[in-house]
Amino acid sequence: MMNPLSQVPLERLRRRTSVKWRRYPEDVLPLWVAEMDVDQAEPVARAIIEAVRDGDTGYPAGTAYAEALAGFARSRWGHEIAIERTAIVPDVMLGVVEMIKLVGGDLVVVTPPVYPPFYMFVRSMGLPIVEAPLKEDRLDLEVLERTFQLIRAERPVFLLCSPHNPTGTVHSADELTALAEPARTYGVRVIADEIHAPIVSPATTFVPYLSVDEHGLSLMSASKGWNLSGLKAAVAIAGPAAAGDLARLPEEVSHGPSHLGAIAHTAALREGGEWLDAVLEGLDDNRKLLAGLLAEHLPEIGYRPSPGTFLAWLDCRNLGFDDPAAVFLERGRVALTSGNDFGTGGAGFARLNLGTTPEVIAEGVRRMAASR
Amino acid sequence: MMNPLSQVPLERLRRRTSVKWRRYPEDVLPLWVAEMDVDQAEPVARAIIEAVRDGDTGYPAGTAYAEALAGFARSRWGHEIAIERTAIVPDVMLGVVEMIKLVGGDLVVVTPPVYPPFYMFVRSMGLPIVEAPLKEDRLDLEVLERTFQLIRAERPVFLLCSPHNPTGTVHSADELTALAEPARTYGVRVIADEIHAPIVSPATTFVPYLSVDEHGLSLMSASKGWNLSGLKAAVAIAGPAAAGDLARLPEEVSHGPSHLGAIAHTAALREGGEWLDAVLEGLDDNRKLLAGLLAEHLPEIGYRPSPGTFLAWLDCRNLGFDDPAAVFLERGRVALTSGNDFGTGGAGFARLNLGTTPEVIAEGVRRMAASR
Ligand SMILES: Cc1ncc(COP(=O)(O)O)c(C=O)c1O
Ligand SMILES: Cc1ncc(COP(=O)(O)O)c(C=O)c1O
Repeated sequence: MMNPLSQVPLERLRRRTSVKWRRYPEDVLPLWVAEMDVDQAEPVARAIIEAVRDGDTGYPAGTAYAEALAGFARSRWGHEIAIERTAIVPDVMLGVVEMIKLVGGDLVVVTPPVYPPFYMFVRSMGLPIVEAPLKEDRLDLEVLERTFQLIRAERPVFLLCSPHNPTGTVHSADELTALAEPARTYGVRVIADEIHAPIVSPATTFVPYLSVDEHGLSLMSASKGWNLSGLKAAVAIAGPAAAGDLARLPEEVSHGPSHLGAIAHTAALREGGEWLDAVLEGLDDNRKLLAGLLAEHLPEIGYRPSPGTFLAWLDCRNLGFDDPAAVFLERGRVALTSGNDFGTGGAGFARLNLGTTPEVIAEGVRRMAASR
Repeated sequence: MMNPLSQVPLERLRRRTSVKWRRYPEDVLPLWVAEMDVDQAEPVARAIIEAVRDGDTGYPAGTAYAEALAGFARSRWGHEIAIERTAIVPDVMLGVVEMIKLVGGDLVVVTPPVYPPFYMFVRSMGLPIVEAPLKEDRLDLEVLERTFQLIRAERPVFLLCSPHNPTGTVHSADELTALAEPARTYGVRVIADEIHAPIVSPATTFVPYLSVDEHGLSLMSASKGWNLSGLKAAVAIAGPAAAGDLARLPEEVSHGPSHLGAIAHTAALREGGEWLDAVLEGLDDNRKLLAGLLAEHLPEIGYRPSPGTFLAWLDCRNLGFDDPAAVFLERGRVALTSGNDFGTGGAGFARLNLGTTPEVIAEGVRRMAASR
């Protein structure tokens, strides 16, 4: 299969109406929000088009999406998902919000730098946030344990990002086990956002959080792996000891997912494996390409290629800019995501989206280099 | 244009995977949830398919949906929608929840019998609900005024269903004005769910709530008019005096709508007028058909054909069943929605979905008649 990340020329991308392509003026090269510059996987496009032709555009029903996810988890990670402990939710972040409500969460621990909506949604719930920052891009298990020990809350929640956005860190089985233990000890419920799970380089093992914590709750989705952000649907999964929590999910939450989204996500997980493998290869190439280009043209920038997600977390502190992304945008007309939005540890960083063509990456680095 | 409500034969409908067609076993004829048994309007199908072919499946952006709605509102109702006072939301009910939060609602007044999720979502927010029941299918303005006067709440909300689900009542300009006045007097904020607005028989005038109340907030969507429930997206609109409230909508709410949904809804409102007109004609025919069939085969049932929505609210109290819908389902293998779910005034009623073919309606009545 051809590399999906080298198929769509810039002039065709510019015609897209999604936020990646419309937030900034035409002269800006967008390397920010987590959309991939691919055409849809053929089985996914086919499933959507068939559903539309059949007029199958009503409300969602059934467990096809969860079953497709279970099949994918089994074949990719040797992990069993019990369908009776799943629920379809509108999307990953609304799922996270519902899971926090289900466990009665009254305080949320996050590990910055981390996906900005973790802050936005939790703040809108009126809950306090406690930070336990990463250490060299990995979970700082000591700090986490100390945090769990010290927080005063009735029902604290730890919101795990696995793989981690923006660093691309794939947490190991040992790390996750070493996290689950103190969580258990101190009564902290772990909610794992595993939306980036399908996008892990084949040389690295993704470990589903529920394989180490039976009290855990997880959110999974095909939306990042197959660029289906515009077709909202996600699956919430409960560990065996969390089944009672998920069972209390209000019925009306099931009204929220897009049925066409669920159909697309199902097709992706069921028949999109080959396409995904080609994307993963393309991403490996893109990481190497970016590392090489930065070493050559922007050696001040620190970049540790990482196996998870299509995002690159760039340490731009040596450039001496307050907000490197703002400078790249203003001077170089290239849009990255500002590290400032990712909480503690984000200042001086910028996030670059590698889910695009080699040409766009090269042009992006050229523009960044020209911004100094 | 052909009547879209007479195009899809039952064997093709049975292949659908949406909840209407999958909740019950194959031998049940489903006349319940608010999906219409139509094929997609051609311009809508085309817009979705083009977006999928273009890989335009990222996050939503821009105001195209609100602009298409404004065009529709202008040409159908002579009503101006100010784009700067709109926001795209994940769907109507999540929009209602966000609007209640924006005005700080601490108590919600509803007019039963009314759409069951009004209760479900408000209860999940932990808010008390006060009922001001309809009187002969219309707003009881006296009871509403007295209720507004007597409730003890800091920031009460009235959740208006306009047109009214399940009765199909289209509130008149006089009624809405007579509602807005005491709401103003007693500090009750009105949130209008206007999802059924496009489905009003041409002989009747739909009056947008914001045309009578500048403090109002409204939710509109193409989802009912064009059977797009499976492609979630809706528009929240603020009256001039509510602009400040809507401006406080948390940014992350804009992550929730389906971009493909927004594209579909936009195409529907912009280019789906002719198709909608044909549906409205078909619905008028279906109302007459149902009234005739009931008079002939089930004269015990009271049915007042009403110009709004594709729903028929059947007074089955003379049948003497506790829950008529349960009896129709069990004995007749036909699924209606139980009136019990609609709050006060629902007992002894059942809701029948007219958004289907004449053949299905006839078969539905046959099955209901056989249930006695
Ligand atoms: C870690 C993480 N969680 C959630 C999301 C958003 O997912 P959804 O659109 O399903 O809420 C993203 C999107 O980039 C993400 O990176
Ligand atoms: C009055 C009313 N509001 C809201 C909805 C649901 O809309 P959405 O799916 O956009 O939340 C319906 C669906 O039947 C409805 O009848």
